[in-house]
Amino acid sequence: MAAKLYCFGESGNAYKAALTMELSGYDWEPVYIDFFNGEARSQEYRELNEMGEAPLFVEGDTKLSQSCVIQLHVAEQTGKFLAEDRNEMLRWMFWDGQKGSGQQGGLRFLMNFLPEAKRPQEAIKFLSGRVLAALGTLEAHLEGRDWMVGAAPSLADFACCGYLYYPEPFGFARKDFPNIDRWLDRIAALPGWKHPYELMPGNPSDRA
Amino acid sequence: MAAKLYCFGESGNAYKAALTMELSGYDWEPVYIDFFNGEARSQEYRELNEMGEAPLFVEGDTKLSQSCVIQLHVAEQTGKFLAEDRNEMLRWMFWDGQKGSGQQGGLRFLMNFLPEAKRPQEAIKFLSGRVLAALGTLEAHLEGRDWMVGAAPSLADFACCGYLYYPEPFGFARKDFPNIDRWLDRIAALPGWKHPYELMPGNPSDRA
Repeated sequence: MAAKLYCFGESGNAYKAALTMELSGYDWEPVYIDFFNGEARSQEYRELNEMGEAPLFVEGDTKLSQSCVIQLHVAEQTGKFLAEDRNEMLRWMFWDGQKGSGQQGGLRFLMNFLPEAKRPQEAIKFLSGRVLAALGTLEAHLEGRDWMVGAAPSLADFACCGYLYYPEPFGFARKDFPNIDRWLDRIAALPGWKHPYELMPGNPSDRA
Repeated sequence: MAAKLYCFGESGNAYKAALTMELSGYDWEPVYIDFFNGEARSQEYRELNEMGEAPLFVEGDTKLSQSCVIQLHVAEQTGKFLAEDRNEMLRWMFWDGQKGSGQQGGLRFLMNFLPEAKRPQEAIKFLSGRVLAALGTLEAHLEGRDWMVGAAPSLADFACCGYLYYPEPFGFARKDFPNIDRWLDRIAALPGWKHPYELMPGNPSDRA
């Protein structure tokens, strides 16, 4: 039976896990979480995941949350996308959770999914500075490299790109980051790659 | 030769790594980073760690950054503090990087270490809400548990407590979180435990 990933299209964190499974040929199917109506914070969902977050991976008795933990589990099952230098791969996965996707997701939410009158402008300005500084670190790392770690794509790539294909603005413009731009094209050229809104159910037009 | 940890007392992220080494009996010594005068963002330091962050672990040819990666390396060397359920341990370590220490560190910086006139009040208010919500998740998880994962202390405990012993206010009061309060006492009772300002060089009184 296919593994289930509780997810929604707008979640770059869920995309990290979904993309890893899809590119690995893992047998999985999405289960839609109605995040924007509070389902992830409901008591019922918290019984599945006390963190109140997507994604959540369920396969038989295995229940995992945190996108990077799901990525690692899938890679250990399939043997795919594990960089030779595991510590270097892990280092970028942890970095992404704090400085990359971890900040981009929050900022994108504030700038796009909160009603306009409720958007905290000073917090947005503060977070924007942090997000751009972190993108600068990523851009510098990709100078002269095809992939985040070593000579092949790994979980670190699928972690760090989590929010970078979305159309909703959060201060990231591909033209300002040419190394990131080329790297995103490289990932998107991998066999089986899909955009987050193709890979997972739910996108902003559903609520338009 | 002892491993070197580039760190400073105020960094709860560095504390996660330092505490893990100290409680494991690992041979290590701190190297002070003058974070508040920008040393971590200097070109010289970026050549050691392109992320421009503390902590950084150096031992012979091994150079690691990201506190949780250092924790994992030390635990794999010593065989200590690895929870039996590794995925559950990793899940809380990733959670801490994004929602726990990852947010607490930024908020504490804004509220204590920025000059008063420069503190972005709306961003502080926004982050405070996020920090308190995450502490609520931690408090709920510790209900009826002695340790974060399983029946013994693990890396997950030393990750999630990173910023919680500091005296500088960031909205966390132990009396409001009785499960966290007792758990912090439990960690502090482990043989060899030290407060971050005892374990690492540098503290706010140096700059007073």
